[in-house]
Amino acid sequence: MIVFKVTMGNKRKIINDPVFGFITISGNNVLNVLQHPYMQRLGRIKQLGLSSFVYPGAVHTRFLHSIGAMYLMQEAINQLRMQGQNITHEDAEAAQLAILLHDIGHGPFSHVLENSLVEGVAHEEISGWMMQRMNNEFGGLLNKAIDIFHNTHHQHFLHQLVSSQLDVDRLDYLCRDSFFCGVNEGTVASARIIKMLNVLNDNLVVESKGIYSIEKFLVARRLMYWQVYLHKTSVAAEQMLINILKRAKSLAMNGIQIQGSNALQFFLHHDITKEDFNTNQTLDMYAMLDDSDIWSAIKMWCTHPDKVLSLLCNAFINRKLFKVKILNEPVDVKKVAQLKLSYQKTWNITEEESDFFWGIQSVSTDTYSPSDDRINILYNDGTIKDISDASDMLNINVLTKKVRKDYFYYTLL
Amino acid sequence: MIVFKVTMGNKRKIINDPVFGFITISGNNVLNVLQHPYMQRLGRIKQLGLSSFVYPGAVHTRFLHSIGAMYLMQEAINQLRMQGQNITHEDAEAAQLAILLHDIGHGPFSHVLENSLVEGVAHEEISGWMMQRMNNEFGGLLNKAIDIFHNTHHQHFLHQLVSSQLDVDRLDYLCRDSFFCGVNEGTVASARIIKMLNVLNDNLVVESKGIYSIEKFLVARRLMYWQVYLHKTSVAAEQMLINILKRAKSLAMNGIQIQGSNALQFFLHHDITKEDFNTNQTLDMYAMLDDSDIWSAIKMWCTHPDKVLSLLCNAFINRKLFKVKILNEPVDVKKVAQLKLSYQKTWNITEEESDFFWGIQSVSTDTYSPSDDRINILYNDGTIKDISDASDMLNINVLTKKVRKDYFYYTLL
Amino acid sequence: MIVFKVTMGNKRKIINDPVFGFITISGNNVLNVLQHPYMQRLGRIKQLGLSSFVYPGAVHTRFLHSIGAMYLMQEAINQLRMQGQNITHEDAEAAQLAILLHDIGHGPFSHVLENSLVEGVAHEEISGWMMQRMNNEFGGLLNKAIDIFHNTHHQHFLHQLVSSQLDVDRLDYLCRDSFFCGVNEGTVASARIIKMLNVLNDNLVVESKGIYSIEKFLVARRLMYWQVYLHKTSVAAEQMLINILKRAKSLAMNGIQIQGSNALQFFLHHDITKEDFNTNQTLDMYAMLDDSDIWSAIKMWCTHPDKVLSLLCNAFINRKLFKVKILNEPVDVKKVAQLKLSYQKTWNITEEESDFFWGIQSVSTDTYSPSDDRINILYNDGTIKDISDASDMLNINVLTKKVRKDYFYYTLL
Amino acid sequence: MIVFKVTMGNKRKIINDPVFGFITISGNNVLNVLQHPYMQRLGRIKQLGLSSFVYPGAVHTRFLHSIGAMYLMQEAINQLRMQGQNITHEDAEAAQLAILLHDIGHGPFSHVLENSLVEGVAHEEISGWMMQRMNNEFGGLLNKAIDIFHNTHHQHFLHQLVSSQLDVDRLDYLCRDSFFCGVNEGTVASARIIKMLNVLNDNLVVESKGIYSIEKFLVARRLMYWQVYLHKTSVAAEQMLINILKRAKSLAMNGIQIQGSNALQFFLHHDITKEDFNTNQTLDMYAMLDDSDIWSAIKMWCTHPDKVLSLLCNAFINRKLFKVKILNEPVDVKKVAQLKLSYQKTWNITEEESDFFWGIQSVSTDTYSPSDDRINILYNDGTIKDISDASDMLNINVLTKKVRKDYFYYTLL
Repeated sequence: MIVFKVTMGNKRKIINDPVFGFITISGNNVLNVLQHPYMQRLGRIKQLGLSSFVYPGAVHTRFLHSIGAMYLMQEAINQLRMQGQNITHEDAEAAQLAILLHDIGHGPFSHVLENSLVEGVAHEEISGWMMQRMNNEFGGLLNKAIDIFHNTHHQHFLHQLVSSQLDVDRLDYLCRDSFFCGVNEGTVASARIIKMLNVLNDNLVVESKGIYSIEKFLVARRLMYWQVYLHKTSVAAEQMLINILKRAKSLAMNGIQIQGSNALQFFLHHDITKEDFNTNQTLDMYAMLDDSDIWSAIKMWCTHPDKVLSLLCNAFINRKLFKVKILNEPVDVKKVAQLKLSYQKTWNITEEESDFFWGIQSVSTDTYSPSDDRINILYNDGTIKDISDASDMLNINVLTKKVRKDYFYYTLL
Repeated sequence: MIVFKVTMGNKRKIINDPVFGFITISGNNVLNVLQHPYMQRLGRIKQLGLSSFVYPGAVHTRFLHSIGAMYLMQEAINQLRMQGQNITHEDAEAAQLAILLHDIGHGPFSHVLENSLVEGVAHEEISGWMMQRMNNEFGGLLNKAIDIFHNTHHQHFLHQLVSSQLDVDRLDYLCRDSFFCGVNEGTVASARIIKMLNVLNDNLVVESKGIYSIEKFLVARRLMYWQVYLHKTSVAAEQMLINILKRAKSLAMNGIQIQGSNALQFFLHHDITKEDFNTNQTLDMYAMLDDSDIWSAIKMWCTHPDKVLSLLCNAFINRKLFKVKILNEPVDVKKVAQLKLSYQKTWNITEEESDFFWGIQSVSTDTYSPSDDRINILYNDGTIKDISDASDMLNINVLTKKVRKDYFYYTLL
Repeated sequence: MIVFKVTMGNKRKIINDPVFGFITISGNNVLNVLQHPYMQRLGRIKQLGLSSFVYPGAVHTRFLHSIGAMYLMQEAINQLRMQGQNITHEDAEAAQLAILLHDIGHGPFSHVLENSLVEGVAHEEISGWMMQRMNNEFGGLLNKAIDIFHNTHHQHFLHQLVSSQLDVDRLDYLCRDSFFCGVNEGTVASARIIKMLNVLNDNLVVESKGIYSIEKFLVARRLMYWQVYLHKTSVAAEQMLINILKRAKSLAMNGIQIQGSNALQFFLHHDITKEDFNTNQTLDMYAMLDDSDIWSAIKMWCTHPDKVLSLLCNAFINRKLFKVKILNEPVDVKKVAQLKLSYQKTWNITEEESDFFWGIQSVSTDTYSPSDDRINILYNDGTIKDISDASDMLNINVLTKKVRKDYFYYTLL
Repeated sequence: MIVFKVTMGNKRKIINDPVFGFITISGNNVLNVLQHPYMQRLGRIKQLGLSSFVYPGAVHTRFLHSIGAMYLMQEAINQLRMQGQNITHEDAEAAQLAILLHDIGHGPFSHVLENSLVEGVAHEEISGWMMQRMNNEFGGLLNKAIDIFHNTHHQHFLHQLVSSQLDVDRLDYLCRDSFFCGVNEGTVASARIIKMLNVLNDNLVVESKGIYSIEKFLVARRLMYWQVYLHKTSVAAEQMLINILKRAKSLAMNGIQIQGSNALQFFLHHDITKEDFNTNQTLDMYAMLDDSDIWSAIKMWCTHPDKVLSLLCNAFINRKLFKVKILNEPVDVKKVAQLKLSYQKTWNITEEESDFFWGIQSVSTDTYSPSDDRINILYNDGTIKDISDASDMLNINVLTKKVRKDYFYYTLL
């Protein structure tokens, strides 16, 4: 077959990223991990789930986010080496693999799934199981990456780059999500922040001239939370999808026929708990699920005989989403009763069923958590301060306050 | 229900576009069309089909492209009005609706579908039928838009803005595709070009100082064709998908059970011709199809008993795409015979079946077509020249030359 | 002269701005004002004075800033009209002229001049006098613009657009300065903020969904202050320039010959007070001054026999700027005495003269001033809150705190 | 002086560039060269001379362009090392120094000066002399850089990076000039092109997949020539400045007093030839000249008793530039005679003097020069083709055609 043989040689693979430009794949190990079906699956799962109902450009995938975070890891490692840190070639690769795989366990519409089909199993746990499976397949290639991920690697700062309040995960997703949403205000000066990184006593620190960039990073993150991640319309759309999947599951468990892909059927017909993931089958099924199964099924359910299911699915597919009001005081129970009654009458459904068409969802976030891995500022004289002390603008009380909003969502008749 | 009533008032709707920024929906008619299930469907169809295999950021939808083109239409109308053209409010709206709907008939992986499931029916025709259906639903609201689309409106230049060699469709997709691919070189100065537009004798013209921008537009378009639209890996991926769907259809037509959504099953089990679209059912089924049906089905077909189907589907899902070589001379038939034989032996398949794993695909494009609606340059003295005469760089021979490449694609064993 | 006659027609003039793209000159009145020598002079004065010592891209002019602010004024007026405000054509033009002229009185290195050559005369006053002169020349054309500038126009919100804590001046300069400095973090979503503007009771308000954008605007402004406007190296360079001009003036006033342009000589040889501006000559001389006079003179002064002057000028021209330390405690007077002594010995100068080579400069800024024109947030229910109350992040104490830094600058021997 | 001692340590210096982001100064040698008065002078000379009359953002300096080109040199060296080229640390530094200094001999409004004050001396020669002077000062530090500059270094491709048809000079200035002008169409994918570079037989080559980028590069360059560098208004402004300086020189040589800085006076009062640069004085005076001398003098000359000089200077300062028409046929001599007569009558000047107020200037450029260092395309099979053969769009006849335009410029009475 000489004529068709392709000499791959030692050509570097380059990926064209609209956010960071050319990203170089650093070697064959990384390339092989990128090619694994588990990673390829992330290319079929949107990073921001249902946000594209609000920001139609926000259809970028978890695959690209992982690659972007890997790029920032390369940059961070370069920077720390220039600052004098010894990072071996193997550890640098492991750090890249760790960040590449940090989200491997995400399912489609992750938060939704965790509230409907795989209740009580967090995607972080699934990530761990999937990494383990891949590591077995690759004959231990991921040992160091898994150490970094689980913070059992001897260089603690590598773990901090993967997971802390100033990790490359956040530095990528804030840039990337604001880019694809078109919300320029959420942009973060990732390159600048990385140029300010250093390590002191095995801990990541930011040089003091970077204070304003960190302040801006925290403010941008907060803005993205309220303007994108917790946008009331996205949250309401998620609730609608949760209700759809709950209803579908309850029908399936009651023996009513319901269409869908094999993988989706599996999760509709079984109550899945953590223990189930001990079997290969559950993880295999999970690995087959992506956004397309959900969308394809919901379109079919638009004509399902169950009225609740078909009403919700039609609304979802055709973007007749729940209306949302922000509650400043407790909801008026009499009005809610009236509302439910109107649903019952209009569609001839039970009171219990009317609860699929409205609800209250609380969302909250803080800007900075003093209990997590801190963001440390390094001064020229060698002293260290927590960002909440170093900043003259952001005081700790404001920063760590959990801001909460209560969304009342309902169907407009 | 007073408490929950939402006064919509005359609030303008604004869409946040990462490419052009804020885009204003000009009124309720446009809003209603945007909300129509046919339009919403475009939000589930990627603009660039399988290009995300090569450019992982290129996952933007046909929905957003349509909105971007509508925005450029607004800008173009503003410009022409400033130049003194009379364009009524109704015609301006109709032009926006026409461009919004110009791609309404696209199916998932459009080109693929036209070569597998709905052979012999072009998406342009389907667009016409869908617009007609929508127009009936909206009680004639789209009459003028359809006139503009079909070039039966009395202002010819409005049709040219929708469909010509310098229409807002191209101005948007070149900007947008290059943005999401991260191929900055494909960017087109849409804003600048629009500022140079004028109308002479009911024909769109470009003022002479815009010559260099037009040259750059043509060069950028050509670059995007070879670097993105006709990228050998994308083309090969499309061929793989065509082969998958053809095989699936042939199995289905032979009575072999094959999984998939209702809509997909419909097209797998029927030979659809133009005439079939006279029935509402065919169009309804078509309108239910989107990218998710294809992906979801192919994942299931990975375990189908038919070896050809399952081999192709596994390769596709896990991005083990065909290898591609550009042929500079006719393919060596002996080598091909050897290749086919090796497939037959390896997988124990027939010779006929071995043809699913390789092929030759010719692609070609020109930069400028002298037979289509020309790009006319207007000089200060009132004379008009075709861009191919006006440009001192681009001579007509080069511009209109059809460049063709022959891709030989095959499976690497 | 027929052959050379140029028909200007009613062609709109367009200016190409790297920050906002195409900016349209709205009519001949604006064009004439732009062509006035006073406006053209702003094209020879850098917006950021000596910041290019730190950010070498920051060489943009006050002329371009004025045009950018005019563009945002056009956008703001469009927005308010869409919100239902009546703004006449004349008032819209006047608002554009007002913002175009708002900085007309700036001299080269404005802050420097006010501390050396024209002590006790603020550029705002000079702006007023220059506008008056232009208005006389233009036969009253600027009456309304001057009313808006001085807040005597009946529509108060137009003045607020020119001058308040959320005026188009700030919206432009934050965008523009961050663009040319390459400090992306200072970027402000001007377009988005303008889309959120409304008017209530003749006061500019921001719709509540714009809160996060306003927070980001305030944070970005603060960042730009510390990272650019009050950067220690820029501040020290300004002090060096002040010392140069003070020394040159003292030499000139003592009858020592000193080279320089006529305009510069005028200000070196006279103690100029406000009253002097009553004469046309003073304003004429002022209008002839720009950055080039200062640079050209300092180069010549490098070889002046006065040691203090030539030392400072050489240091300035060749960017051997003062070193700067941020004082966290009062400066050590003994060490300063030592320092001065070393200057005296090294250069054989008097103690008094040694003070030209070091100093302490305090800089300070707040983020939001509760005593100025407030930033008001408008809620859907019609209520209004000050941004410091509306924001759950920015509390009033933090926002209004004057942050001060003391820079100790000195010459490194 | 302990308290004020500043430990510089081995901190890397970083420059913030709005075009390329953070640029790292690679070491103390480069830093020292950057600090040299000759380099600092480039910070007072605009890259695009009078283009800011047309594009008001185009005020960036030659200093920043040199730094940008140095950055691209760093990138190119990284790329070639990854391709397997051996480039020593010393040679890499020398290449950076060579490109940093490649424009060191430019005077203010370079082209203008060469046509008025220092006739017959090209800036390239002056660059050579200045580098030599600097090399003497630095004790031979620049030996290798000068070798690369003059193409006497053993690695020819390093010279090609400094000076060829695809050098980092062009890659920077196309990006940078289009950025500051706001002419996005001129942007060049520098990063992408550099990723395609390789070396074959000591010659720079571009890998074949970069063909489209090279085509776009050539087209963008051509666009920038006609839209910016040879813009008729800029060219006419240059002619006005040439006439001003010629007139001023002729007055000075005739013993008429004329104001201006020492350095400018030197060149006004002497006929400078190449030989004069053998003396240190001439080079010293040249090194003192920058844009500020020209501007400051012209403002003073506005009131010079010589009518020709004052008329031209007033027009120049207040942007009443020559009008320009593109000649498509020889100018009508009778009309010109009429025009000159009208100038003579209006201003009471001689016929000879009337020639200062009009003229004809021919400008021309080609896109690609087949006689210079070629752009070579490397194919996967190891063959090399000239870009004019490799491209199927750009044929050699079109590419190498010198396009010429004749500008007739005159004063509108």
